[in-house]
Amino acid sequence: MSTAKSVTLGDVASVAGVSLSTASRALNGGGRISEDTRRRVKEASDRLGFQPNALARSFALGRSQTIGVLTQNASGVFTAPVLIGATMELGRMNQALLIRDARFDAATLNENVARLQARRIDGVVLIGDGLNYSLPSVTSLFRVPVAYAFGLTSESDDASFNPDAEMAGRLAATHLLETRRRRIAHITAGLDDPASRGRAHGFGRALAEAGLEQVGGKPLSGGWTFEWGVEATTRLLASGTEVDAIFCGNDQIALGAESAIRAAGLSVPRDVALIGVDNWEGMITSDSARLTTIDPCLQDVGAAAARSLGADEAWSPGAHLVPCRLIVRSTT
Amino acid sequence: MSTAKSVTLGDVASVAGVSLSTASRALNGGGRISEDTRRRVKEASDRLGFQPNALARSFALGRSQTIGVLTQNASGVFTAPVLIGATMELGRMNQALLIRDARFDAATLNENVARLQARRIDGVVLIGDGLNYSLPSVTSLFRVPVAYAFGLTSESDDASFNPDAEMAGRLAATHLLETRRRRIAHITAGLDDPASRGRAHGFGRALAEAGLEQVGGKPLSGGWTFEWGVEATTRLLASGTEVDAIFCGNDQIALGAESAIRAAGLSVPRDVALIGVDNWEGMITSDSARLTTIDPCLQDVGAAAARSLGADEAWSPGAHLVPCRLIVRSTT
Repeated sequence: MSTAKSVTLGDVASVAGVSLSTASRALNGGGRISEDTRRRVKEASDRLGFQPNALARSFALGRSQTIGVLTQNASGVFTAPVLIGATMELGRMNQALLIRDARFDAATLNENVARLQARRIDGVVLIGDGLNYSLPSVTSLFRVPVAYAFGLTSESDDASFNPDAEMAGRLAATHLLETRRRRIAHITAGLDDPASRGRAHGFGRALAEAGLEQVGGKPLSGGWTFEWGVEATTRLLASGTEVDAIFCGNDQIALGAESAIRAAGLSVPRDVALIGVDNWEGMITSDSARLTTIDPCLQDVGAAAARSLGADEAWSPGAHLVPCRLIVRSTT
Repeated sequence: MSTAKSVTLGDVASVAGVSLSTASRALNGGGRISEDTRRRVKEASDRLGFQPNALARSFALGRSQTIGVLTQNASGVFTAPVLIGATMELGRMNQALLIRDARFDAATLNENVARLQARRIDGVVLIGDGLNYSLPSVTSLFRVPVAYAFGLTSESDDASFNPDAEMAGRLAATHLLETRRRRIAHITAGLDDPASRGRAHGFGRALAEAGLEQVGGKPLSGGWTFEWGVEATTRLLASGTEVDAIFCGNDQIALGAESAIRAAGLSVPRDVALIGVDNWEGMITSDSARLTTIDPCLQDVGAAAARSLGADEAWSPGAHLVPCRLIVRSTT
């Protein structure tokens, strides 16, 4: 393999016994060349381990094979998997990634847009920090396609990629119904948050389709915390209302709910089944290893945004929802 | 800013009232040009928002401004922060990243090395999965510098970047001594693992320098798990040996130790102080939010490897240890 360093098109031409221009046309597909010659050149190229100079080709095509990525918080707990998903997908597409991790204020953003333009990038991914994250629209600043991941802009024509929050609620409800739960409550964060609103909506709809209503008629809305899970569950159990399952807006709430259920002398999942949302890999090794949950597939969100910029796939405007996944463990 | 799309060097030359070649030399620093002319061209360039074509410049220089990254498990709990750290640092260096996330078996590796060579990358980062991870040496396959992050190769001349495990142990010991603990035990994983061996070594040395010996004379060696933390601590407390602090090889062990200390009717940190290692961001929102710990600064490890490939900094061979950081919370 070390020979690959120095093999030139001239070497290939010599070995194949053809001229330089014939070798070039045989490999790049221009001009009229016999099948026999093409095969001979291809064989010589393969045997020598010839690697065409992609940089020269990029320059000739006016394409950099590089995608720009703009983010504000690359190492955030939720942003990181989106970025990793985009990174791996771009690698598979043989596209390089040029990241600018900086604030999205107008001045910094302008500077970073200019830097990406200078590199003649072939596309742009803007990564936000969740569904309630308002991304600046930069589509009109580029001649290349722009995809927005994990956040929304104010322009409905922008191509955005986000986890399907309604599907998360629907999957949770369907799983609890299939495991024969009928008295199901929903504890979540404030419904002004698009993620909790979407999950609550999908959940409520799936129950309604089964002819059921959630316990209490509407979600118990508070925060995304363990403490809120404890408080809401304690209140729910103390009220005397019958409950055999709780869909929790995230895994933290579910862990709080579990703690309150045990404190009340009840058992999970025998008395009350629990399902959360998030499936953080970092948490899995500890408590939440036992939680049934919905994985929002944040890596897939980043990958879908990246893929929309590929040559093969048609970029299309508007909101794209990326499917989430049910992970069944021991709390249901 | 949208004008930046179409401004050419010709536009800059016209506005500055100079020839194209003068404008080029004024901006790129070649030839003899008066300060006045240089300033005039610079002003015109700034006012018009001119962005030189970095792709053309790359081609002219034979540099792609792209760093290749080879990894086997980009989304792994420990690998991901190393990759994110490298990604952000490369962005700051204005270098693009081309990742190949695939197995390191000979055939796949050869294919990926060839792909990176074809892109004329300016350097390579190989990312492993920890100190006990044996990375293949590919230094001789490239003419550009190669840096190894979070793993070691068999070649001592390879430039590797890893968390300073001894420093982790030293920081833990020093912190416990400063908080006036004197009867300190160490519970960790098997000492065949370089990470636990390094931490144990640094810890033992720092105690020895203070004229102390660890409780039991040597570490309690088991696994990296919560369960081992419970078991070892329970055994330690039952033995009747006096203990006022435990340095745990990771946060999982520390959480197990905490649970055993409480089960024994003792209090953390009043009776026994606890310090772990890892500081996973994913875990922080739950239990470990209260743990005093050592952060191995995995993002810094990736960033250091990336930085070693920069034009400004001299790449140097051999093992580079990246400092870790003490995070004081409520268990000490």
